[in-house]
Amino acid sequence: MAGSNIPEPVTAVTDLAGSWLPLGLQEVEQRLREIVAAAGGLAPEAESTLAAGGKRMRPLLVLLCAGRPAQEGGIRAATAVELVHMATLVHDDVLDSAPLRRGRPTVVAAAGRGRALATGDLLLSRAFAELLPSPEAESQVMALAGASVSLARGELAQRQDAFRTDVSAERYLQRCRLKTAALFECACVIGRERPAAARVALERFGGEIGLAFQLLDDVLDVVGPSERTGKARGTDLLDGTVTLPMIRAGERDPELKSIDLHALDGAAAEGLCDRIAASGATEAVRGEARDRVERAKQGLREAPIEHVDQKLFELVADGVVERYS
Amino acid sequence: MAGSNIPEPVTAVTDLAGSWLPLGLQEVEQRLREIVAAAGGLAPEAESTLAAGGKRMRPLLVLLCAGRPAQEGGIRAATAVELVHMATLVHDDVLDSAPLRRGRPTVVAAAGRGRALATGDLLLSRAFAELLPSPEAESQVMALAGASVSLARGELAQRQDAFRTDVSAERYLQRCRLKTAALFECACVIGRERPAAARVALERFGGEIGLAFQLLDDVLDVVGPSERTGKARGTDLLDGTVTLPMIRAGERDPELKSIDLHALDGAAAEGLCDRIAASGATEAVRGEARDRVERAKQGLREAPIEHVDQKLFELVADGVVERYS
Repeated sequence: MAGSNIPEPVTAVTDLAGSWLPLGLQEVEQRLREIVAAAGGLAPEAESTLAAGGKRMRPLLVLLCAGRPAQEGGIRAATAVELVHMATLVHDDVLDSAPLRRGRPTVVAAAGRGRALATGDLLLSRAFAELLPSPEAESQVMALAGASVSLARGELAQRQDAFRTDVSAERYLQRCRLKTAALFECACVIGRERPAAARVALERFGGEIGLAFQLLDDVLDVVGPSERTGKARGTDLLDGTVTLPMIRAGERDPELKSIDLHALDGAAAEGLCDRIAASGATEAVRGEARDRVERAKQGLREAPIEHVDQKLFELVADGVVERYS
Repeated sequence: MAGSNIPEPVTAVTDLAGSWLPLGLQEVEQRLREIVAAAGGLAPEAESTLAAGGKRMRPLLVLLCAGRPAQEGGIRAATAVELVHMATLVHDDVLDSAPLRRGRPTVVAAAGRGRALATGDLLLSRAFAELLPSPEAESQVMALAGASVSLARGELAQRQDAFRTDVSAERYLQRCRLKTAALFECACVIGRERPAAARVALERFGGEIGLAFQLLDDVLDVVGPSERTGKARGTDLLDGTVTLPMIRAGERDPELKSIDLHALDGAAAEGLCDRIAASGATEAVRGEARDRVERAKQGLREAPIEHVDQKLFELVADGVVERYS
């Protein structure tokens, strides 16, 4: 994956789709690079980190849902959605003072807290400018602003729940809808105006795979391996973030609910991860994620949607699971 | 001013304008309160700080420029501009770990860094949602996104220039255009579509009083008194931020350019402030600010603008100067 312009689960999709999709993704990369370069005042390391890209799942979804061939409006919408995502990553790294992301120095490590904070604000503001001018700008801005507000509300909710081992699965899922699924939903509808029924179906597809994505990410924090995730197991628990594996483990082993997460150190966090995995909870959560992906695929098969290639969507959905298997 | 809903320089303007303007500002306050309350997950102290308001110069400008009576579109635009401003304040306080703003605990003090960062992101995203739906949404989003990108670029530029005592007045003014004037310019054009000539004239008015506002703020950091500003004199210098008073002082007393700001402590910073004031630089910068305000007023008198009340604009412009005299 390293050194390639187009990252993994995307590859299977772009292979099947033919050249229009990788070409569209390349245009998105180009726009992202230009936007970062135009910001000014960023350390070169910070620029290269931002330009180095990630999985680009969200732009891929935007382009797929907008349909072939990729038009300028779709490229811009895909760029805007990724800019919002990048803004949240840059701000997350400020909070964690994280040294690395994707093996490169984070913006905060390369440029300091002040510039990283301003960079996140810039990327977020720039996302909205990216949608203009367009005949569909109003509904696009509405979709993006809604998702972006949801991301922040999800972050606030997560912090409100911090260190609460008695948090319910419903509350956790609601948090994930805000924090992760909302932007996936937005990605599936922002690139093309559609009749209400098709829009709802695509939104549901995005929401389900977004939730699956988050569930599997949370499993990874418990099971590692850390060589693959680039961080120690139990990082969430050390931060006080109680996720579905811990919640499901608590249903099997109620003693877990009385653990004081404030008292954890790195070794104790790894021990707790082992206990969660031993309870069968991580396997159960993986199953829940797979169920969501299946539901997403099934929902799309039954939906009245024009201009989408069923098979490509199924590959994207499967890609979410495969990344973590 | 404390305890009143409508803050100072605004009072003279609202007295003259008649009830439509204070009523409009009250509607803006109401919307801001609702938006903050709807965020969820904020500590009550943080909510009350956000709702407690500030000078509300920008909403006042939006409503004035949109013209009487205040329409829903103008109220929404005024709210959106203030939300962007609030977002930058919340994020600034995260960086400084500031305990108080306007005599109340800051969001970061009341709710912690993570929630404060998310709150800023939420306010910024919410600003764009506030502009919808509207027939003028596209140009409004364009104006607001442009201003919001400028704010972040100004912040980046200021950090790039940090501790450089040889920074030029031109570079400083360019920074201020980005960091402060851009949102004032936006405030003057976002509330009503106008012919190009009128738009340009209003934008220029906003830009000049925005720059004057920043210049006088920077003078205040040098001359205090700290009982009035709520912070020690020389705070900018201690942060490495070289502003126009220091630049103009360096033109009069070139030795100042070789001072190493990294080596300053609080007492040395106050000493440097005294030296800057003694050089006549603060008085000179006050004069530059007053000239800008006069230019702003003159420009508007000559402009082909319908629906604006000249006298009200002059009061707003004078209010910027009076706040600091």
